[in-house]
Amino acid sequence: MSAFPTPKQLWRDVQVFDGLAQLDEPMTLLVEGERVAGLWPAREFDEAQAQGATEVGRGGVLTPGLVDCHTHLVYAGNRAGEFEQRLEGVSYEEIARAGGGILSTVRATRAASEDQLIAASLPRLDALLADGVTTLEIKSGYGLTLDDELKMLRVARRLGELRPVRITTTLLGAHAVAPEYVGRADDYVALVCEQMIPAAAAEGLADAVDVFCEGIGFSPAQCERIFQAAQAHGLALKAHAEQLSNLGGSTLAARYDALSADHIEYLDEAGVRALAAAGTVAVLLPGAFHVLRETQLPPIELLRQYGVPMAVASDANPGTSPICMPTLMANLACSLFRLTPREALSGMTAQAARALGRPDLGRIEVGSPADLCLWDVQSPAELAYAVQAGRLRQRIFNGEIVYAR
Amino acid sequence: MSAFPTPKQLWRDVQVFDGLAQLDEPMTLLVEGERVAGLWPAREFDEAQAQGATEVGRGGVLTPGLVDCHTHLVYAGNRAGEFEQRLEGVSYEEIARAGGGILSTVRATRAASEDQLIAASLPRLDALLADGVTTLEIKSGYGLTLDDELKMLRVARRLGELRPVRITTTLLGAHAVAPEYVGRADDYVALVCEQMIPAAAAEGLADAVDVFCEGIGFSPAQCERIFQAAQAHGLALKAHAEQLSNLGGSTLAARYDALSADHIEYLDEAGVRALAAAGTVAVLLPGAFHVLRETQLPPIELLRQYGVPMAVASDANPGTSPICMPTLMANLACSLFRLTPREALSGMTAQAARALGRPDLGRIEVGSPADLCLWDVQSPAELAYAVQAGRLRQRIFNGEIVYAR
Ligand SMILES: [Zn+2]
Ligand SMILES: [Zn+2]
Repeated sequence: MSAFPTPKQLWRDVQVFDGLAQLDEPMTLLVEGERVAGLWPAREFDEAQAQGATEVGRGGVLTPGLVDCHTHLVYAGNRAGEFEQRLEGVSYEEIARAGGGILSTVRATRAASEDQLIAASLPRLDALLADGVTTLEIKSGYGLTLDDELKMLRVARRLGELRPVRITTTLLGAHAVAPEYVGRADDYVALVCEQMIPAAAAEGLADAVDVFCEGIGFSPAQCERIFQAAQAHGLALKAHAEQLSNLGGSTLAARYDALSADHIEYLDEAGVRALAAAGTVAVLLPGAFHVLRETQLPPIELLRQYGVPMAVASDANPGTSPICMPTLMANLACSLFRLTPREALSGMTAQAARALGRPDLGRIEVGSPADLCLWDVQSPAELAYAVQAGRLRQRIFNGEIVYAR
Repeated sequence: MSAFPTPKQLWRDVQVFDGLAQLDEPMTLLVEGERVAGLWPAREFDEAQAQGATEVGRGGVLTPGLVDCHTHLVYAGNRAGEFEQRLEGVSYEEIARAGGGILSTVRATRAASEDQLIAASLPRLDALLADGVTTLEIKSGYGLTLDDELKMLRVARRLGELRPVRITTTLLGAHAVAPEYVGRADDYVALVCEQMIPAAAAEGLADAVDVFCEGIGFSPAQCERIFQAAQAHGLALKAHAEQLSNLGGSTLAARYDALSADHIEYLDEAGVRALAAAGTVAVLLPGAFHVLRETQLPPIELLRQYGVPMAVASDANPGTSPICMPTLMANLACSLFRLTPREALSGMTAQAARALGRPDLGRIEVGSPADLCLWDVQSPAELAYAVQAGRLRQRIFNGEIVYAR
């Protein structure tokens, strides 16, 4: 099987999940160059439609390349030590007093060079790719100084040059108040608005700006200032909202036409209505729910009723979701949040792409970019049902088979 | 790096988890032929101790090869369709009426040839090996006729010839009453005792015999008949016990000197005391707990107090734990059962080996078989903390590096 793109490539007898649903019968798919050029029921396929095409795959389940629309993939250090301490009975307070928690990741990330951050992040990125990811979002948020936030964003961009994958970047300066600004959160917000956002925009380092709207994060008023600054610089918006309490962050995000509101365990019906009206995507993060042993479920049934698009993401991060396996996220979305396998897979393809402002991705239809995964399973639902590495047969990025076994 | 064994192989500067605990400082390990021949603190290592040895690894975390002591890895078909139906709102009763549940797996497994079962099971086995397994147990239990149970055991044995791995086999004829015997459970138990056990023993196909002691399985009296027949044929004993209710299956197992009592969510203090007195291993199965959304936790604190050895296993099976990833099981054991990472890793190495009657395995000490894993992590705890495929750098089986990257 060629590792290089051919002008015309053909997959035969594949079951297709097109990003929204499973098609009824086995299909034949033609890719020309970087795009899907044809999609026919296999039994109606006329060989004349694909003259000169090379057959590169047969059988299996074909999905869009997976889109992981919420990650904190770039960081230094890890928090396995804290994980162990907590299970050995050390209290969260003692760990925090000893300098643990997010600030330990901030210290390690500030101390790391770009190359060190690349080296630390590549194995995590490779794990995502090996499980089918072709597009992911990476947030900053462990630098919390102008220079360190920009450093993280540069690392995220460089990762996209080192591997065949699309990476979108999000400035999350408002992840936590920097330790130097404790007690002066508004001053820190000013730093985000007046320095980080303009610099990230000027250097083209950020596609979006995100905030952590929470009692232990930033108030809705502070988030609104950040949204205004981001919009003034032409950047898209996202929000960590309603994870631990209901502050109205999702409604605020919807009011500013944000791409997504993420976590949303504590979202109420008014918030759901606001997301629906704005077309803002609800991003569900079952990894953090699992790790934190959260019991407050996101309002799945209301999201369905109001037709809010639901995405599912890994939230890969060292504290609350050290999990780099998108198919496990699909499993957790089903088992913990009771999504159907169809919703979970759509949440990691078409809906996740919308949450990144890239509705052209995460679909398999004529004209869409040929980011695809061919899986050795018998049905799309099996990807969410079983947890098993190594089921990916091919990963196709931009029309090129970049992984095959 | 050689794919073949050399007489003397050296790993330098490795952090060692020896099956029970992490050693205090970086170590140098020597393997001669199939066995661990030397283990020294790296800073005390005298090169004269390993003359003629080839350095084959440096840095990383070295653990015993993982031992998965409870799997139902061999079966045909899968139950992704039921998984999907349940999430779409179809009741368990409707699915059972339509022929779903364990009996659908029995039908598919009976209909499959040995070669078909091999083909269906190999990807699951390969997933376990890629995540560090060097020894696993495989149970029968989806045949429920003499011929089909023996067929499953033969397939399990053949899998051990196809891959570099140790496989122990367990006859689980008493997994469910065969559909042909509904209402005549005692007659089915007679079939297990009088035909399956003697035949499996005579053909050398089973190392142990297991029972499902439960209201929806077999009564303690029926399990006792099976234990007696197994002992008469010199086979070791295991029990699925106290998963859904407390019938005293673990106490019965302990009374018969069983190797292990498995699941044990509903085990009480008297049962814990019985396991401790007999030295029977408590096998914890967090995958089934996760999939079934069980809330009754196994009595971890009591098991600790009484010094009962705790193992952790995948329970890989198509219904309640379609999960072939041992490091995820370590994570679930910590997150769901609050085991410490040390307990979880010991539960997948030294304690799991005891649950298979192989206390020589699952350890790293001078003289032990050189079944080892070298991991690209910074501490043993990281294996339980993060969920990420691809962290295995080398898998060493019987002194041979059978996987390296
Ligand atoms: Zn996040
Ligand atoms: Zn079992």
